[in-house]
Amino acid sequence: MKGTVLYGPRDVRFEERETPQILEPTDAVIRMAATCVCGSDLWPYRGIQPLNGPTPMGHEYCGIVEEVGKAVRSLKPGQFVVGSFATSDNTCPNCRYGYQSSCMHREWIVRAQAPVLRVPLADGTLVPTPEVPPEDFVPSLLTTSDVLGTGWFAADAANVRPGSTVVVVGDGAVGLLGVLSAGQRGAERIITMSRHAQRQQLAREFGATDIISERGEEGVARVLELTKGVGADSVLECVGTPESMLQAIRCTRKGGHVSYVGVPHGVELSGQELFFAHVHLHGGPAPVRRYLPELIELVLNGKINPGTVFDLTLPLEQVAEGYRAMDERRAIKALLRP
Amino acid sequence: MKGTVLYGPRDVRFEERETPQILEPTDAVIRMAATCVCGSDLWPYRGIQPLNGPTPMGHEYCGIVEEVGKAVRSLKPGQFVVGSFATSDNTCPNCRYGYQSSCMHREWIVRAQAPVLRVPLADGTLVPTPEVPPEDFVPSLLTTSDVLGTGWFAADAANVRPGSTVVVVGDGAVGLLGVLSAGQRGAERIITMSRHAQRQQLAREFGATDIISERGEEGVARVLELTKGVGADSVLECVGTPESMLQAIRCTRKGGHVSYVGVPHGVELSGQELFFAHVHLHGGPAPVRRYLPELIELVLNGKINPGTVFDLTLPLEQVAEGYRAMDERRAIKALLRP
Repeated sequence: MKGTVLYGPRDVRFEERETPQILEPTDAVIRMAATCVCGSDLWPYRGIQPLNGPTPMGHEYCGIVEEVGKAVRSLKPGQFVVGSFATSDNTCPNCRYGYQSSCMHREWIVRAQAPVLRVPLADGTLVPTPEVPPEDFVPSLLTTSDVLGTGWFAADAANVRPGSTVVVVGDGAVGLLGVLSAGQRGAERIITMSRHAQRQQLAREFGATDIISERGEEGVARVLELTKGVGADSVLECVGTPESMLQAIRCTRKGGHVSYVGVPHGVELSGQELFFAHVHLHGGPAPVRRYLPELIELVLNGKINPGTVFDLTLPLEQVAEGYRAMDERRAIKALLRP
Repeated sequence: MKGTVLYGPRDVRFEERETPQILEPTDAVIRMAATCVCGSDLWPYRGIQPLNGPTPMGHEYCGIVEEVGKAVRSLKPGQFVVGSFATSDNTCPNCRYGYQSSCMHREWIVRAQAPVLRVPLADGTLVPTPEVPPEDFVPSLLTTSDVLGTGWFAADAANVRPGSTVVVVGDGAVGLLGVLSAGQRGAERIITMSRHAQRQQLAREFGATDIISERGEEGVARVLELTKGVGADSVLECVGTPESMLQAIRCTRKGGHVSYVGVPHGVELSGQELFFAHVHLHGGPAPVRRYLPELIELVLNGKINPGTVFDLTLPLEQVAEGYRAMDERRAIKALLRP
């Protein structure tokens, strides 16, 4: 089998690797229907996050169960499944509180840009669809594995409710699906910060009512102008830089909610600024497993079509071009077909 | 009239000042029944927070209305009133969201350690009691003005609910009344961090079920031990230092809530630590005005007796001794009688 390995900044290789096998009785091995490149893959790709040697890549996945370990109870070969980028037993206290991405037995999925994947803690991690879905549902089902699940968590963690005024900071795939998620939760007004025509277009399709192209303090001023000086009820921070975090906090009304769902890079928050901002702050790695059943159902019922976030489809062996296209912002998100 | 002025570190003077008068038609002038020294007064007293010259002090107050401005509608001379340390019109959007301490027309009260006080925005700031209360209710009513209101907000912002496991970091007056507040909200277990016998005793009286004398990482380890490795649902950070903030975050379970209610001093939060901690964070200057009607009622009905937090009562002119006693931790909180 060949799989994706990052050797260093902008050095993605698709090379021969061992085919994954069942190692633990709680494992499953799945054959990938599709996988993709994540915005978070770009941090190490750009050299911003250091590597410890060659690193296998990929954590978004869906496909057909090939084999399960002896202890797996709820899954069998032939089923179509989606799982989170974080494995979970779904029974520990953290899981029961709905924070499966902080499961006490969590492992991070890291080899999913490959045709075959071993998934630990399969019973608690994977969610099967009622039947094998038609091919054209695969892109949208794939999004539930991370990018939609993360946008959904962003809207949930920012307390988006019917009638809310929402700001989304970041026009990457997570931000765009944050727009879709806010709309599904009944937001009345969804203000997206974007200066990229194609992304603005997709944001509108997903439900954005206003687009702001200004950034930083000017962007904040525009939000305050649009909200009569009050700020937004809910702000979804979908970037992870110090600038985007401050922009999010400063766009939020007193008592409003800020969520942040991308691993922060270089972010240090001033306690005093946060104190006088009077906002609620919540975020972290999205507990995708909590949302998977609901999101899969919304996709299969045709209520949402998040798969349109993929504007580039490549054969898996051209994964390096997927990284390049996203790095250069030529593509929003690259779908990879084995 | 004499009033309290801080000239520099540990230099509190009670000296001749102009008697406050109505300046704006929305003002009231009240004659103090009692005032007190706040934990936050100790930051400038200790020289940790710099001063711009001699600074009048005091922001906790209750008393009898002497005079009201022409535009004041809801108050009249002779009424007993309590107000917040932050003035509020109680009609702007921030106020209507319940964040009166971020009122768009907020002023900070800063001259309350005096026999007479001018209160701006009197209609929106002051809450009258149904009748002039008996003298022995005054200490408890005074606490609603800040220290109880702040402890109450700490419990609210940390989402304390019936059955919650709560940790209170800080055994100052706010922390102790955070314990009382958590108990009133139905917390099942209230773990207080304190190594001071008298404060431990008062914490128990206010409803603490467990006392931890360890601090820092050892304190965190003790909380995890007491919560089977999970952490607490709600943690009230009532100190405002980098150490106490980290201690609070690390004591909290995944998906749990941390509140912080003292102005943070030197606190910088790592975005990554916060991200993987998976906590909710909320705090700021307590919107005391939101809680005043409820808290006044609880006091007057004898349901709570927060006034026991005052373990030192002094004539107002001995205000400097009140600061000294609190600075040296000889007193939890000093009540001042004009």
